[in-house]
Amino acid sequence: MKKVAVIMGSDSDFGVVSAAVKQLKELDIPFEVHVMSAHRTPEAASEFSKNAKNNGFGVIIAAAGKAAHLAGVLAAHTTLPVIGIPIKSSTLDGLDALLATVQMPTGIPVATVAIDGAGNAALLAAQMLALGDETLSQRLADMKTAMAEGVAKKDAAIQEKVNQL
Amino acid sequence: MKKVAVIMGSDSDFGVVSAAVKQLKELDIPFEVHVMSAHRTPEAASEFSKNAKNNGFGVIIAAAGKAAHLAGVLAAHTTLPVIGIPIKSSTLDGLDALLATVQMPTGIPVATVAIDGAGNAALLAAQMLALGDETLSQRLADMKTAMAEGVAKKDAAIQEKVNQL
Amino acid sequence: MKKVAVIMGSDSDFGVVSAAVKQLKELDIPFEVHVMSAHRTPEAASEFSKNAKNNGFGVIIAAAGKAAHLAGVLAAHTTLPVIGIPIKSSTLDGLDALLATVQMPTGIPVATVAIDGAGNAALLAAQMLALGDETLSQRLADMKTAMAEGVAKKDAAIQEKVNQL
Amino acid sequence: MKKVAVIMGSDSDFGVVSAAVKQLKELDIPFEVHVMSAHRTPEAASEFSKNAKNNGFGVIIAAAGKAAHLAGVLAAHTTLPVIGIPIKSSTLDGLDALLATVQMPTGIPVATVAIDGAGNAALLAAQMLALGDETLSQRLADMKTAMAEGVAKKDAAIQEKVNQL
Amino acid sequence: MKKVAVIMGSDSDFGVVSAAVKQLKELDIPFEVHVMSAHRTPEAASEFSKNAKNNGFGVIIAAAGKAAHLAGVLAAHTTLPVIGIPIKSSTLDGLDALLATVQMPTGIPVATVAIDGAGNAALLAAQMLALGDETLSQRLADMKTAMAEGVAKKDAAIQEKVNQL
Amino acid sequence: MKKVAVIMGSDSDFGVVSAAVKQLKELDIPFEVHVMSAHRTPEAASEFSKNAKNNGFGVIIAAAGKAAHLAGVLAAHTTLPVIGIPIKSSTLDGLDALLATVQMPTGIPVATVAIDGAGNAALLAAQMLALGDETLSQRLADMKTAMAEGVAKKDAAIQEKVNQL
Amino acid sequence: MKKVAVIMGSDSDFGVVSAAVKQLKELDIPFEVHVMSAHRTPEAASEFSKNAKNNGFGVIIAAAGKAAHLAGVLAAHTTLPVIGIPIKSSTLDGLDALLATVQMPTGIPVATVAIDGAGNAALLAAQMLALGDETLSQRLADMKTAMAEGVAKKDAAIQEKVNQL
Amino acid sequence: MKKVAVIMGSDSDFGVVSAAVKQLKELDIPFEVHVMSAHRTPEAASEFSKNAKNNGFGVIIAAAGKAAHLAGVLAAHTTLPVIGIPIKSSTLDGLDALLATVQMPTGIPVATVAIDGAGNAALLAAQMLALGDETLSQRLADMKTAMAEGVAKKDAAIQEKVNQL
Repeated sequence: MKKVAVIMGSDSDFGVVSAAVKQLKELDIPFEVHVMSAHRTPEAASEFSKNAKNNGFGVIIAAAGKAAHLAGVLAAHTTLPVIGIPIKSSTLDGLDALLATVQMPTGIPVATVAIDGAGNAALLAAQMLALGDETLSQRLADMKTAMAEGVAKKDAAIQEKVNQL
Repeated sequence: MKKVAVIMGSDSDFGVVSAAVKQLKELDIPFEVHVMSAHRTPEAASEFSKNAKNNGFGVIIAAAGKAAHLAGVLAAHTTLPVIGIPIKSSTLDGLDALLATVQMPTGIPVATVAIDGAGNAALLAAQMLALGDETLSQRLADMKTAMAEGVAKKDAAIQEKVNQL
Repeated sequence: MKKVAVIMGSDSDFGVVSAAVKQLKELDIPFEVHVMSAHRTPEAASEFSKNAKNNGFGVIIAAAGKAAHLAGVLAAHTTLPVIGIPIKSSTLDGLDALLATVQMPTGIPVATVAIDGAGNAALLAAQMLALGDETLSQRLADMKTAMAEGVAKKDAAIQEKVNQL
Repeated sequence: MKKVAVIMGSDSDFGVVSAAVKQLKELDIPFEVHVMSAHRTPEAASEFSKNAKNNGFGVIIAAAGKAAHLAGVLAAHTTLPVIGIPIKSSTLDGLDALLATVQMPTGIPVATVAIDGAGNAALLAAQMLALGDETLSQRLADMKTAMAEGVAKKDAAIQEKVNQL
Repeated sequence: MKKVAVIMGSDSDFGVVSAAVKQLKELDIPFEVHVMSAHRTPEAASEFSKNAKNNGFGVIIAAAGKAAHLAGVLAAHTTLPVIGIPIKSSTLDGLDALLATVQMPTGIPVATVAIDGAGNAALLAAQMLALGDETLSQRLADMKTAMAEGVAKKDAAIQEKVNQL
Repeated sequence: MKKVAVIMGSDSDFGVVSAAVKQLKELDIPFEVHVMSAHRTPEAASEFSKNAKNNGFGVIIAAAGKAAHLAGVLAAHTTLPVIGIPIKSSTLDGLDALLATVQMPTGIPVATVAIDGAGNAALLAAQMLALGDETLSQRLADMKTAMAEGVAKKDAAIQEKVNQL
Repeated sequence: MKKVAVIMGSDSDFGVVSAAVKQLKELDIPFEVHVMSAHRTPEAASEFSKNAKNNGFGVIIAAAGKAAHLAGVLAAHTTLPVIGIPIKSSTLDGLDALLATVQMPTGIPVATVAIDGAGNAALLAAQMLALGDETLSQRLADMKTAMAEGVAKKDAAIQEKVNQL
Repeated sequence: MKKVAVIMGSDSDFGVVSAAVKQLKELDIPFEVHVMSAHRTPEAASEFSKNAKNNGFGVIIAAAGKAAHLAGVLAAHTTLPVIGIPIKSSTLDGLDALLATVQMPTGIPVATVAIDGAGNAALLAAQMLALGDETLSQRLADMKTAMAEGVAKKDAAIQEKVNQL
């Protein structure tokens, strides 16, 4: 299976990004995790992205906060799909990162997920890889079923809480 | 090749959505276009999504404005990747559609592109399909090169405009 | 009396939603509480809504955060009035849920209350049911009077606080 | 059948509000339309609201822009359900009216619809009145079916537009 | 001297509003403090405002949060200047209260100060009353001088902090 | 009677500001109009404000757009009440000017009216001057009555429009 | 004198950017204008920035809209000061470009001017270059004086317009 | 070398502003720190700015919150480049200060950095001064290299954290 690259702009984002890593592990998808910055290590980022396809990657996930350029900069150098996770930082509640990630110009898309939505970024990468991998596709379907059953259990459990009011 | 489904919530969105259709045609990607509403024809939308994989679709693109639930509702019924295009409507400049599309809960990702970013939605779908299709991958790389050459030409042309100031 | 359905998208919303339940209890209005998700259990949600009228419900209250589609999805399957409570989550202060709940397209209204306004959702449901129930209507009028008296008492009490400044 | 009151803060709002009036006419629901301002004719507004129930009204719809207090002021004087339509004015795209209408304090709900969502305000009023009127309920169900059929027709028609691209 | 009325929509606003009361005390301006709600005690609020001029008030200060209608409702019933303090509540950081207070329609102004700007509301009231009271005017000028001297002292003190870095 | 100063940051604001001038003329209040900029003519602005009281002014109205500092800069140099009109410019719909005008620090209030709310700025100035001028106060009361009658006429007139739908 | 580079992300930005070019011409500052995109021609942009200092540039001005990464990407490759002009595009009124330009992480500043503030970007570049160029400094001081005189003339002219009301 | 002035509107901003002071110390750039307010000590601020060039300053950094006028007021009185730091205060997350700082009118630019971006303000000042100081320029280049190496180390370190998940 092709690998997923998980790139974060700062190691301080790892608290959020770890949810993506856990999800990829749970789905048995090979991955690499890197700290690279569109602004502080622009050449490392460019090089990584240019060679990603040849190095066996299928999808790139990029997480960054504030003026979040990382996903866009990576997308500029590859034709692989790039998924952007806008990270909430100390001001503006993540709105800056969301707009800086999603509002890409024509020609260079970034597949943006919710603010701090790292788990969904990994799921989205899995959905893309599953297009050519029926086993993974089945694993995603099973996870969807389990998720629904989980909600059904919570529905049952809520009745007790209601009675205690 | 797997097909791309392009679903819009209202036929009034076609002015924006047509850019996606043109891009798919240009890339020779098979597609179907439908008008289906998460709110007005919820069952048609659910049915379409549930059967999309079996009906030969690989990616679903959903365009909707205001409280844009279409992409999320389609994503709820499939494990295929779903791309959301937030459509700008008469108020709030598309911010409502952007937030209603991108802020999905854990478990059900929607790959969101820019407000009215229909062309990029098609490109993103192509990038996903190209994971298993080297010909398409090459076509995307060629398009990227052509795009860069186009900017270079515009750089040359701007000098004349500058001189006329 | 017809029942009120209180549906929440996640059991983590119960902290907010419990104010609605308490208000319904205080007004002696029959109700049911459920955890159902527009995205994780879309079929359970659709089925519930389609059958709600026949199952004796008069009003549906739906609470959800982020890309809050729950109220809209329920409204898509019923002609009963649906009240939406936008829930504040970890980012954007509830603005995402507010816009995703209130900005519904023509044909499918959602009666939206304030962010985290669960108590008011219950009161609004009571006002609707009171259209055909003079006893409930009188109870609401009494509650309104009591509320005014409560403010008057607080007005008296504030003088003391002012004197202590 | 109980009447619906449609109150607008300024006659300049009639361009938007007329959609509510048309919808009520189409559904054969009796109504009255008034221009009353929370700020310019506060006493007329208070009097209207206080007497609305006794004067045969079941639901009040209030439309106002900017610091939209009209719905809240009417709700302060009645236990009837009050529906608020936030009107977009020359600045801020209706966000001011939306927040001023929906963010009501506990005890005084306003059922808020989308910015300029006059048609939905009328539908919501109809849904409330239909709780005690099976004929109206059936009319709403028929309208819902017709709406779905309309979307299906647009789906068929879009194929032609796609072919012309 | 005419009195200043300080009205708050809820006694929970007193933490913020007390800054206004302290400022009025410091300036020796007579005042009254009340808890009155535009929504919960609309008649008490209307009555107070209608009679305020005859009861010896010169300026009314109104503090409210969320869909903050209090200042507007008071302004509707008087020709006295009304000062609005938007109160920050649990969501939206006070933006809702700011817009609901300041965006008044033509004919009914509310003099709006900063979110939670209670001290400035009192100063503004003092400036208005000082138009006819040279002693108060001098007191305000003295306070302005003292304020400037306070900043100058802080400028001197900051050098020490800088040296400690 | 004391004069009202109407200061605008740019003569391009006169289209909006003229509503204030007309209102002052209608109320027979003496005034002066000036173009002065907090940024382009800071000394003229400071001098004007410092001398305003001695030159017979009672209230200063300041209109400015974008990073609207004019009202704040004038308020810094006087103890007269300063009214700020945030002007909508080509971007951000006036939100920048609103926040830059209203969010003043403790000690220097600006009485802010609605975006482009020039007429209300003049009315507010009149309300302040009327604190010491019973004739003006009566004129304001008459205007309020006339305004209410105007709404009542529009209420009568709307019935005809409704019938034509 | 060192040159100023004026880089725009798309030639469609030239309508706004031309104001910067005119200002530089008026101040006799040498400059070059280029169309380069952070996303479509990332290598051209990186190369330009890396070599800018050696090629005789002193300041770089970068204009871009939407997810405006251009200024940040240029700043990543140089220690020259980079000035960012956020360009308003078809949605969100330039807020996206403003946040994507200004919210840069520690270590890589971008000197951001107002949305569409191209003239000011050129002035700011001139101010920087004037640090080592007394002639240019004097030219800026003269321009400031002329600007003040211009406002004074408009102040005189406004009186006539006022009289015509 | 010319000095950098670091001016803050209130000594409560020093917690944020100290990052700028530290950065200037680290770069061996001479500086002065002052507390001056556009509103509370407008004359001190004007005087400082008017004389800054003659007093040996090359760049002015101004930090202020809420209706942040300080940078603009300083820029009005000098042709030196002025850098603005918008400070986040208790409401609105710094958006008010950002807009009040960056949205300057044509003729008076303020070089705005991120909300609370004090370190970058100092770096930007250093970049300006380095235009005429090759030693400082080299120091900035070294710092950029060190920053990149720091990220590379964090990239190495993250692998361990990933393994622990």
